[in-house]
Amino acid sequence: MFQHYTTSASPEFGAQRVTALRAGFDALGIDGFLVPRADEYQGEYVPACGERLAWLTGFTGSAGVALILRDQAVVFVDGRYITQLAHQSDPAVFSRGDLIKEPPSDWIKASAIKGLRLGIDPWLHTPAEVRKLEAALASGNGSLVLLSTNPVDGIWRDRPPAPAGRVTIQKHQYSGVLAKDKIANIAKSVAEHGSDAVLITDPSSVAWAFNIRGNDVPHTPHPLCRAIIYADGLAELFLDPNKTGIEEKAYLTQFCEMRDPADFSMALEALGQRHATVELDPALVPYAISRTLSDAGAKIVEKGDPCSLPRACKNDAELEGTRAAHLQDGVAMVEFLSWLDSREPGSVTEIAAAQHLEECRRRVGERMQNPLADISFDTISGAGENGAIVHYRVTEETNRTLKPGELYLVDSGGQYRNGTTDITRTVAIGAVGETERRFFTLVLKGMIGISLARFPAGTRGVDLDPLARIALWKAGVDYGHGTGHGVGSYLSVHEGPQRISRAAMQELMPGMILSNEPGYYRPGAFGIRIENLIVVNAASAIDGGDMPTLSFETITWCPIDRRLIVGSLLTDEECGWLNAYHAKTRDLLLSLISDESTRQWLINATEPVNNR
Amino acid sequence: MFQHYTTSASPEFGAQRVTALRAGFDALGIDGFLVPRADEYQGEYVPACGERLAWLTGFTGSAGVALILRDQAVVFVDGRYITQLAHQSDPAVFSRGDLIKEPPSDWIKASAIKGLRLGIDPWLHTPAEVRKLEAALASGNGSLVLLSTNPVDGIWRDRPPAPAGRVTIQKHQYSGVLAKDKIANIAKSVAEHGSDAVLITDPSSVAWAFNIRGNDVPHTPHPLCRAIIYADGLAELFLDPNKTGIEEKAYLTQFCEMRDPADFSMALEALGQRHATVELDPALVPYAISRTLSDAGAKIVEKGDPCSLPRACKNDAELEGTRAAHLQDGVAMVEFLSWLDSREPGSVTEIAAAQHLEECRRRVGERMQNPLADISFDTISGAGENGAIVHYRVTEETNRTLKPGELYLVDSGGQYRNGTTDITRTVAIGAVGETERRFFTLVLKGMIGISLARFPAGTRGVDLDPLARIALWKAGVDYGHGTGHGVGSYLSVHEGPQRISRAAMQELMPGMILSNEPGYYRPGAFGIRIENLIVVNAASAIDGGDMPTLSFETITWCPIDRRLIVGSLLTDEECGWLNAYHAKTRDLLLSLISDESTRQWLINATEPVNNR
Repeated sequence: MFQHYTTSASPEFGAQRVTALRAGFDALGIDGFLVPRADEYQGEYVPACGERLAWLTGFTGSAGVALILRDQAVVFVDGRYITQLAHQSDPAVFSRGDLIKEPPSDWIKASAIKGLRLGIDPWLHTPAEVRKLEAALASGNGSLVLLSTNPVDGIWRDRPPAPAGRVTIQKHQYSGVLAKDKIANIAKSVAEHGSDAVLITDPSSVAWAFNIRGNDVPHTPHPLCRAIIYADGLAELFLDPNKTGIEEKAYLTQFCEMRDPADFSMALEALGQRHATVELDPALVPYAISRTLSDAGAKIVEKGDPCSLPRACKNDAELEGTRAAHLQDGVAMVEFLSWLDSREPGSVTEIAAAQHLEECRRRVGERMQNPLADISFDTISGAGENGAIVHYRVTEETNRTLKPGELYLVDSGGQYRNGTTDITRTVAIGAVGETERRFFTLVLKGMIGISLARFPAGTRGVDLDPLARIALWKAGVDYGHGTGHGVGSYLSVHEGPQRISRAAMQELMPGMILSNEPGYYRPGAFGIRIENLIVVNAASAIDGGDMPTLSFETITWCPIDRRLIVGSLLTDEECGWLNAYHAKTRDLLLSLISDESTRQWLINATEPVNNR
Repeated sequence: MFQHYTTSASPEFGAQRVTALRAGFDALGIDGFLVPRADEYQGEYVPACGERLAWLTGFTGSAGVALILRDQAVVFVDGRYITQLAHQSDPAVFSRGDLIKEPPSDWIKASAIKGLRLGIDPWLHTPAEVRKLEAALASGNGSLVLLSTNPVDGIWRDRPPAPAGRVTIQKHQYSGVLAKDKIANIAKSVAEHGSDAVLITDPSSVAWAFNIRGNDVPHTPHPLCRAIIYADGLAELFLDPNKTGIEEKAYLTQFCEMRDPADFSMALEALGQRHATVELDPALVPYAISRTLSDAGAKIVEKGDPCSLPRACKNDAELEGTRAAHLQDGVAMVEFLSWLDSREPGSVTEIAAAQHLEECRRRVGERMQNPLADISFDTISGAGENGAIVHYRVTEETNRTLKPGELYLVDSGGQYRNGTTDITRTVAIGAVGETERRFFTLVLKGMIGISLARFPAGTRGVDLDPLARIALWKAGVDYGHGTGHGVGSYLSVHEGPQRISRAAMQELMPGMILSNEPGYYRPGAFGIRIENLIVVNAASAIDGGDMPTLSFETITWCPIDRRLIVGSLLTDEECGWLNAYHAKTRDLLLSLISDESTRQWLINATEPVNNR
């Protein structure tokens, strides 16, 4: 299985590990050390050897940072992780900080500690973070100390080795554009800017540009590696040679020079020595890299990652692949939901459900000869009040039975060679109350509001976000997360720069894949989220219109629980969308399903809804 | 009448005036001079003596700037003024620049003129503008020359004198808060920031803070003046003593020191000599002021105008006043619209209509003992294709008959002692086509979308703007202006910082008055806009909701032309809003109208619409 349900946290080790860490402070000339969740690649997932924050504090959440001083230790987390932190870390050792309202730099400023010498590992922080820390420390006459080795690694005796996941080639059938052409385009833009080279430090960007995939971190199939692309067209790929076989080496050496990751610093020094102008993305690059470059004499130009936008705008091959992946994933979801409906209410647990869903994806993958390569994130499988925890991850301790009369929320996805999926459905276990049905319908109205949107070129995610919320706002409720994130093509399930939220200033462009996932959460009671993936398309001309428009193509196919829909709350337009969606879902999936009871379930689940 | 319909432009004088201006270049040591539309107060309206751009070029639009070089002269305007510029200025003398795509600083950079010494009058430009010009000039080794007198004034022989409009006191009944309390609050915030003083250079801010009004520029009742408020509570008002009588002087000297405007520079010098820390708004202050301050030794802190937000959030007295003003204005609009309907289609011109509307406002003001103090802007009175010109201002040359089968768009407002109004209605002249009716209904859907919105605290104008557009977007059309602007309380009809548009990042707060005015314009054919004013209110709690919300209270009362509404395009919710709005309009206005035919018109105009 790709997901496990044990809690790896060990709060009991916190005290001794922090003591050991502090014991090294004097030798390093520091009074404190910062331990972020990020690793050297600033990605969403980190390999086991990069889980320094979890090892030190016990806290395994996906965002956080520990500030270890001589006489206190603070773990900064955001609102969604308050409970988890309390369970996973030792409160006698760690106090809690607020990562959003008062992150470490603000905390340091407010603490008014004088002369603090704060150590950091410059590979784990971006230049932007370093600038903030330096300013905060300066206000108390303190200073930042860049350490050449990470003191956590020094005391972590059984630290796992760096991952060496096998690299595979992303076939032209799925990538649509040759790596040599992508690289040539990037090199051309570098030359046009008058720069000499650009650093690609985001592994997903390297994976996209070089048409390779990897197996180094959970759920995101990129290899941990970096690249430099030069204005003259030369590309250097810094990738552990153990990750590639003969075939991959033969492929890569056609258009790039393969170099050992240990040579990366040397390449930076060389750029410095010739006073090269080097582009890098200050939100993605480790400070160690930009510092080495500038110390060596290079001129740094801060620019967004050149792969980010072309990666977001999928080409026809990528879209065709992702559509196929979604059909297959829809079959798995239908098999799962029909199975769930066939169980006696009260007989299934959150873990059993998540395990069965993974099994469905795996089985359908084998049957359709497109195996499930991974799940795209740990399945959120939450019944009743657990559904109200937005980033819930079920463990043996929290595991709950799906009880009659409750809602069950399942947010999951698959990584397939041809595409990445992400789908949420909320379903009724037995008969549920009117309150749940009303809010489910309001969330659905929001989801349909996005699905039906048409908009002119230049429209940004921020301009569509309210269409998903207005029905909820009118009922006096809201949800505390964005409406949609970008999704990759057999890459990260959370991909930028495209998104739909109140902060989403990126214009939406044809080919972008986004999630459409409004929700409503009543703490201690229930959670609702409905999520489809959508693609930005150039819409056909509209009779009587006078401008071109964009619209969304929904690519997720899976019934939305009719038992939870209050038809009378839907407008004709909304009801029309829903019934057309269900009709097409039935049409597309039925021929892919042979089991008779699953077929019958699908037919029932896609019957029209009446709003009069 | 407050509005005239002649064209004041005199293109024939452009050549000789530009020649005269250039003749002074050598003595001033400049190769060019910049003539903006702005005067020394950076307001929307300028007094006759500040109309330098119109005097020099003939162009009377509300935004523009002329760049006069030795061998060429360019007038920069935005898209809406292209035709007007062509009519009003001499093309043999002036070429046209694009104020949005390539404003003067960009034009200078692109022109690659070497060593240009560009003169400006530092009273007419903000520090932000000066910084941009300096950077542009530097790229060609040029320089900015700050002139101590404006060379246009030197050759403008019959330049009108500075206005000396009489200042009046805005009674406590309408202002709600005493000037001494407003000033004390501002002084307190200055002290809290650790500053010594704040400059109030926006006349509307001075008018608000000191509870005075004036009569110096058309349509906006603020006196041209400035103020300094000190941390210790002292307030200095720099106001022409000829503008106040004994009563106003007695009022003002209770809480401020009245000083001659000629002493303003002296006050800045004094701040500099004591190295004071002085707050100013870099978007509002003339560069001459900030330069004098910093040259004299003051420390400048750039901060938003402290009056801006409290002025935007109207108190109960201001809201009560503005509601009453809107009722009265609604009566005038009903008298106007019923009169228009009683005319034979084809017998009324745009000017006649605008004149009659002003007459209605004046007559109702006298009858209700709350006289029309001014119109709040030049009425936009556009029939047929003229309705498609968003900022149309009718003149004798463009005057058009309201023809049968066409739409007539009228956007107007009144300045009353208790409030400022702004309303747009689009009405059918005779029977109009289905296309016009369909788009009218789509615009109405957008207007209702905003009217019905509820939203959590923290919601910004940008988050609501799409609710006004989505119905139009779905039909493949849009409108090229914001959805709403702020409106003052017997002050500017265009007030910040509140607005509803894709750039509106200000959070909406209780008491803010905004316009709600989506539209659709088909060039050469017709224009549609429907505008009500709305107030942000804390909404009552919603059954089943779990957060406080804000909502809009509509304060404009006037029928929306039922003949133009395609009922079947409205949802039940939209149709319900419309019918409730019409019922309340009838209810509120009928008792204020005695003329029987007008009463009957109102009753007919507010009959329910059916959407089935």
